[in-house]
Amino acid sequence: MPIAHIHILEGRDRSQKKKLIEEVTKAISSSLQSERGKIKVLLHEVSEDNWATAGVTKREEKIVD
Amino acid sequence: MPIAHIHILEGRDRSQKKKLIEEVTKAISSSLQSERGKIKVLLHEVSEDNWATAGVTKREEKIVD
Amino acid sequence: MPIAHIHILEGRDRSQKKKLIEEVTKAISSSLQSERGKIKVLLHEVSEDNWATAGVTKREEKIVD
Amino acid sequence: MPIAHIHILEGRDRSQKKKLIEEVTKAISSSLQSERGKIKVLLHEVSEDNWATAGVTKREEKIVD
Amino acid sequence: MPIAHIHILEGRDRSQKKKLIEEVTKAISSSLQSERGKIKVLLHEVSEDNWATAGVTKREEKIVD
Amino acid sequence: MPIAHIHILEGRDRSQKKKLIEEVTKAISSSLQSERGKIKVLLHEVSEDNWATAGVTKREEKIVD
Repeated sequence: MPIAHIHILEGRDRSQKKKLIEEVTKAISSSLQSERGKIKVLLHEVSEDNWATAGVTKREEKIVD
Repeated sequence: MPIAHIHILEGRDRSQKKKLIEEVTKAISSSLQSERGKIKVLLHEVSEDNWATAGVTKREEKIVD
Repeated sequence: MPIAHIHILEGRDRSQKKKLIEEVTKAISSSLQSERGKIKVLLHEVSEDNWATAGVTKREEKIVD
Repeated sequence: MPIAHIHILEGRDRSQKKKLIEEVTKAISSSLQSERGKIKVLLHEVSEDNWATAGVTKREEKIVD
Repeated sequence: MPIAHIHILEGRDRSQKKKLIEEVTKAISSSLQSERGKIKVLLHEVSEDNWATAGVTKREEKIVD
Repeated sequence: MPIAHIHILEGRDRSQKKKLIEEVTKAISSSLQSERGKIKVLLHEVSEDNWATAGVTKREEKIVD
């Protein structure tokens, strides 16, 4: 039943995303005793121009680092 | 006034998405007696690597089918 | 598979919400040829102080009407 | 950096929600090698009248069970 | 046209929320040259048990402070 | 702490999006007396086929204008 929308920065490869999905599904299932079959995970990839903390985008952060 | 965010798997063509938008708008308008002009529908297309049920992505499901 | 998050103003009764859910489920199923069993609809009720158009909240709109 | 919005049915107690948050944070951190301090988890509790699969609300499902 | 969903911690009073809505509407309108009338702002209030950073909920943070 | 998800139509350039992020961050910070460092803004760009008001997509609106 639980639905997880996870916003991540663009750029992870398929295997990393698969690992994220698997680990989060396990975490939800074990903590809520929810059947795995009822757990949905959706990843939303956001570009570095579209994600900002304190008004500074991820792209700008990289330039500063 | 109602705002519908609908998450669908990537891959539908324009006419299918248009039909979805039209049917959902009608459904909301008739069930809530809302003016059509006040109903917003936003579609969010999610790739098969980014959508999983029970930890299994849509891409993997297709391989198994 | 489709997941619809529908934001509506607080205050509808159970039967109206049920009708909305049923009509939207039918609309998604027919337009996308999706199995009903795979369609999820979540309603998010927002209070009149927390919903604004042009900076004017729904509560303020009511006062003006 | 990752932000997880997790929609769950209303009714879990504080300790269950804490466990869910902790497990999901761990899962995201380990799978993406993200610093814990940068991971946000928000839980959105949805009532049984506002969550439906195949047009059937969770309240109705309970009556049928 | 722009739709802003803003997640905030529960507890602000009406006037603070109104100020937030007004300021964000102005910000969107001026930066995108969007008509005010087309800008929607929805506030989503999240309880301190349901919002966590690094696995620590806002309630727990307050206890530690 | 506040997290703003802002849905905008695809097509703005980087500098416009940066201005939007900066203005919204300032607006949230000043209205809620929130530290800038705790404010996250995520932009979600939606294509003109995927955004509709009254069942009419932004693409169709342009054709009519």
